[in-house]
Amino acid sequence: MTTPRYLQIFGLAEIPEIRPGDDLPTLILEACRRGQVMLQPSDILIVAQKIVSKAEGRLVDLNTIAPSAFAQALAENMSKDPRFIEVVLRESRRIVRGDARVLITETHHGFICANAGVDQSNVPQANSVSLLPVDPDASAARLRERIRAMAGIDTAVIVADTFGRPWREGLVNVALGVAGITPLRDFRGLADGHGRSLKATVIAVADELCSAAELVMGKDAHQPVAVVRGFVYEKSEGGSQSLLRPPHRDLFR
Amino acid sequence: MTTPRYLQIFGLAEIPEIRPGDDLPTLILEACRRGQVMLQPSDILIVAQKIVSKAEGRLVDLNTIAPSAFAQALAENMSKDPRFIEVVLRESRRIVRGDARVLITETHHGFICANAGVDQSNVPQANSVSLLPVDPDASAARLRERIRAMAGIDTAVIVADTFGRPWREGLVNVALGVAGITPLRDFRGLADGHGRSLKATVIAVADELCSAAELVMGKDAHQPVAVVRGFVYEKSEGGSQSLLRPPHRDLFR
Repeated sequence: MTTPRYLQIFGLAEIPEIRPGDDLPTLILEACRRGQVMLQPSDILIVAQKIVSKAEGRLVDLNTIAPSAFAQALAENMSKDPRFIEVVLRESRRIVRGDARVLITETHHGFICANAGVDQSNVPQANSVSLLPVDPDASAARLRERIRAMAGIDTAVIVADTFGRPWREGLVNVALGVAGITPLRDFRGLADGHGRSLKATVIAVADELCSAAELVMGKDAHQPVAVVRGFVYEKSEGGSQSLLRPPHRDLFR
Repeated sequence: MTTPRYLQIFGLAEIPEIRPGDDLPTLILEACRRGQVMLQPSDILIVAQKIVSKAEGRLVDLNTIAPSAFAQALAENMSKDPRFIEVVLRESRRIVRGDARVLITETHHGFICANAGVDQSNVPQANSVSLLPVDPDASAARLRERIRAMAGIDTAVIVADTFGRPWREGLVNVALGVAGITPLRDFRGLADGHGRSLKATVIAVADELCSAAELVMGKDAHQPVAVVRGFVYEKSEGGSQSLLRPPHRDLFR
């Protein structure tokens, strides 16, 4: 893989409010046309998790939730809605850490993030929250396949969400679901500029692509899809699993 | 701040091997000319820490280092050069975590990263290692000031390095030193698409800009500088401190 010298990132605007069952690939291709972004082979589409979740109907009306005693106790400590905490717990494999402000949990997918990705913002239904997609890799693969079928173009697709991280302030956009691109770029064994081999240099390009795309997405901008053009990448059907650090390789579990 | 719809990222190639005392701003402007990247106001220059450190003479010849007994004991457990471990310890405020492969330390700046940022790759001098700049914000501010003086253009400058992170595999490029741009973009209090205010949404745009730039930098590509064009940002002289999460707000210390 060569390193490119020039990248372009397009934000797709005017994507309408997404409702359960909406045909996201069609809406994305329409937004490409309106924005005069003609998709090209090897373009990478970065799609905000929120619209994928909405299209897949991953919304929960809190009025339908009966919180457990454990959720009620946690919620009381946090001054939060016990039904919200209940949904967070249902989406979680374990609680990693928590305090009076937030629960950091590991989701059933293996992501570690605030509130298991359960979110009330940008959800139009009153009292409803959005959940992460059940299988973000499958969501990305379906989007990719439909775009290939409809537009005849082989793109990569990454479903992205903004996650916090230890030690550093602020959220950054990272990859939850990946289709058509190898998420890690491995420089190990390659020589540096002085013939010495590069050690421990594996770059999470899928996450960097999501972070790049976030710069044209914005939380308030109604640009939930971005197209990255010019990046040279290895094609793969392997999904996002290689981005998750296994516990035995993680000093921070 | 509005969210842009279109970004461009240029990698500057053919920057020569940097030696202590080299005039980095001049070399960057020459690379801009050669690459036909005419700097524009509000362009953001992302500069790899390695070349900043080299220009500032932040190189240590391991032959000059006498390791302490503590460094020797650690190095024996890790099968590493005790002089390398000694340099890592000198660059560190504390050891955060460690195992047989790596020391995660907090640097005197407050960064938490592998080996305190001490690195042997891409250092031409035999037996030498590079250290992080003493004050990356000051390094970024000096670069910015010199570029403004020589080219008459007001840019932002970010000094970047690739850091690992818990939970997720792979390194991503993040901001160490920042000049001319507010590193965090704060959406709190703004309305989402449905009039609900956005909570807990502060985006680390400086880190996202570095991650975007890394896609055209590459570890083996001799493109240690990138120009990001089109991003709309708040100007600030505040440096990078706001990116460091204070211990009382960090669930993972």
